[in-house]
Amino acid sequence: MLHLAVLMQGIITTRGLAVPKALITTVPFGTKDRLPLELMKNAGIDYLINPVGRRLTENELAELVSDFDVIIAGTEPITAKVMDRASNLRLISRVGIGLDSVDLGAARDRGIHVSYTPDAPAPAVAELTVGLMLSLLRSIHLSNAVMHNGGWDRVFGRRLAEITVGIIGVGRVGSRVLSCINGFAVPRVLANDLTPNRELNRGFELEWASKDQIYREADIISVHVPLTRLTKNMIRKRHLLSMKPDAYIINTSRGGIINEQDLYEVLQANHLGGAAIDVFDFEPYEGPLRDVPRCLLTAHMGSMSVDCRTRMEIEATEEAVRFLAGKPLLGVVPSYEYEVLK
Amino acid sequence: MLHLAVLMQGIITTRGLAVPKALITTVPFGTKDRLPLELMKNAGIDYLINPVGRRLTENELAELVSDFDVIIAGTEPITAKVMDRASNLRLISRVGIGLDSVDLGAARDRGIHVSYTPDAPAPAVAELTVGLMLSLLRSIHLSNAVMHNGGWDRVFGRRLAEITVGIIGVGRVGSRVLSCINGFAVPRVLANDLTPNRELNRGFELEWASKDQIYREADIISVHVPLTRLTKNMIRKRHLLSMKPDAYIINTSRGGIINEQDLYEVLQANHLGGAAIDVFDFEPYEGPLRDVPRCLLTAHMGSMSVDCRTRMEIEATEEAVRFLAGKPLLGVVPSYEYEVLK
Repeated sequence: MLHLAVLMQGIITTRGLAVPKALITTVPFGTKDRLPLELMKNAGIDYLINPVGRRLTENELAELVSDFDVIIAGTEPITAKVMDRASNLRLISRVGIGLDSVDLGAARDRGIHVSYTPDAPAPAVAELTVGLMLSLLRSIHLSNAVMHNGGWDRVFGRRLAEITVGIIGVGRVGSRVLSCINGFAVPRVLANDLTPNRELNRGFELEWASKDQIYREADIISVHVPLTRLTKNMIRKRHLLSMKPDAYIINTSRGGIINEQDLYEVLQANHLGGAAIDVFDFEPYEGPLRDVPRCLLTAHMGSMSVDCRTRMEIEATEEAVRFLAGKPLLGVVPSYEYEVLK
Repeated sequence: MLHLAVLMQGIITTRGLAVPKALITTVPFGTKDRLPLELMKNAGIDYLINPVGRRLTENELAELVSDFDVIIAGTEPITAKVMDRASNLRLISRVGIGLDSVDLGAARDRGIHVSYTPDAPAPAVAELTVGLMLSLLRSIHLSNAVMHNGGWDRVFGRRLAEITVGIIGVGRVGSRVLSCINGFAVPRVLANDLTPNRELNRGFELEWASKDQIYREADIISVHVPLTRLTKNMIRKRHLLSMKPDAYIINTSRGGIINEQDLYEVLQANHLGGAAIDVFDFEPYEGPLRDVPRCLLTAHMGSMSVDCRTRMEIEATEEAVRFLAGKPLLGVVPSYEYEVLK
C-alpha cells in the first residue's frame, strides 16, 4: 500500500481550498508543454498529478479519488468501486481514445459525464505502426541488438512493395496507416471493418476481406480496433496458426485483443516471422514475450509523439475547464460507445 | 591466413575443366533464389562462391582470384594488386551500385570491363532508410532494448508530420525515399544534390538547399551519395555539431561518408538525438558506436530485401553470362563514374 496521504501533500493549490479539483491520473503530463497546467491554473482549478508515476491500480485510484470533481484520465480502471469512492466526481475527461478502462454504464448511472479526445492520438499511432512494420520486415530491431552485442548478421527482409498488408479496423488509426503507406506501392491491401467505409476505396487500392482471409493471406497484419466484449481475445492461437509461417502481426491498439499467452506460445513454436506489441494486458508489461527476441516490444508509446500527446492533454484539459465553468462539453463520448462496450 | 587451396576444392564444376570460371565474392548469394546459380550452370560456367563467408580482404581476394575470367563482386577491394594476380580476368560484374571498392582506372588500363546493377538495390535501401527514420523518431530500438531487459520506459518521440527532413543526395535512392515518405505529410523537405533534378519539384514539396543549411535546419538527415574523393569524410565533427542538439542522422550509403570517430565523439558528448548507421569503414563493424545505445546499428542491410537482392544477383549474373557468350554488355559502368572516382 502506498502512502498516498503523504504523497497527496504534494497537491498544487492555486487559490486556496474551496476550488474545483482535478485529478490527473495519466503520466507523463504537462512535461513537454506546460500549457495544460497553465490552463488549469488560470481557471482556478486545483490539480494533482498521479504521484505514483505509472498506471494506477483500481485500489490506488479508489484511495486517491475521493475529493476530486474531475479526473483527467489515462487508461487506469475507473470502475463502479472507484466512482463510489468519488462522491464529488462529475466528469471523466479521457486523454486519448480507448474507453475500455471506464465503466461507462456505472458512470451514466451516477450522472458522471465522460469525454474523450478520439482524434488526437491517431496520427502518432499510425506513424508508430508503420515504423514497427518496417522494423519487422527488415529485422532492424534484431540487427541492432546483435550489433550492440558485438555480432554482425546480414538479415534478409521483405519490402512493403512486395507483400500483402492486412488492416483489421479501418477507423481513425487504420485509415491513417493507409495514408502513411501510400507512398510504398504496396501491391495488395486487405482491410476488415465492422462497417467498411467504402469511401476509402476512392483514395486507396483496397480490398475488403473477412478477418479469416486476412489471417490466411496477409504477410503483415496490423490491428486497429477498440477493446470491447467483441474484440477481447479476438486473435487466439487458432487465428495465429492460420497465418503464414513467416507473417508478422502488430498490435498498437489495446492489450488483450491478441491473446498474449497464445502469441507467446505460437512464437515459441517457431510460427510467424515475428510480432510487434505496444500494448499489454497489464502495464508495465512483465510477461514472457520479453524472452522472444523477434517480438518487438514498445512501452505503450503509440500516442507518444510530442505534438499528439500535447494535443490530447490540451483537449482533455480544455474539456475539464469548460465543464467546471459551466460551459457545454465538446468531446462527449457518443452513445454507441456505451452500447458496444456493454 | 586461410587455407584457401583447401576451401577451393569446393568449387562446383559443371562440365569439366576447360570452361569459363566465375568467382562470386559477395555473400550470401543464391540462397533465397537459386536462379543465378542455375543461369551459370546452364551456360556452362564453373563458379566458386566466396568460401570465407564474409567480405574478403585484398590479400584473400588476391589469393583466390588467379584462375577466374569473371568476378561477380560485392564490396571487397578489387585493386590493381588483385587484378595483377588475375591474368584471366576480363569482367568485374558488381552486384549492386557502389564502385568505391573497384579501382576503375586500373581495370581500364588492363582492359577489364566493369558492369554494375545500379537500379536494383535502390527500392530496398529507401525502405530501410524510412524504417530507420521512424525507429529513431519514436525510439523503437531503445524501447525494445529496455523492455527485453525487463524495463518499461514510455519515450516521447516526434512525427515526420511535424519536422524538417533533409536529404543529401537525391538520386536513385534519395528520390525513392521522397516517394516513401510522401504519405506522411512531412511539412518541409530540404534536399541537396550536385546536380539538382528540378523535375522532382513537380512530384514533391521540396526545397533545394546547401548542405550547411540542411545541417542547421533539418531534424533528421539522410545521406544518399556514392563514396568518392568528394564525399569521403564529407560529414565531420563540425558538421555534426552544427546540427540541432536533438536532430538525427542516417547513413545507408557507404561507410566513411560520415566520419565514424567524429560521430562517436559527438554522440558521446550528448549532442544529437541519435543516429542510424548501416554502413561502415570496415565490415563487419567492430567499433565504438556499439557502445552508444541511441546509435541504431544494422549490418549493411540496405539492399537485403529478398526481391532486390535477387534482382541484383540475377542482373549481375546475366551480365557475366552475356559476356562469356560474346554478347554485348547491358550494365557497363558509364564513363562519368570513372571521372568522379579518380
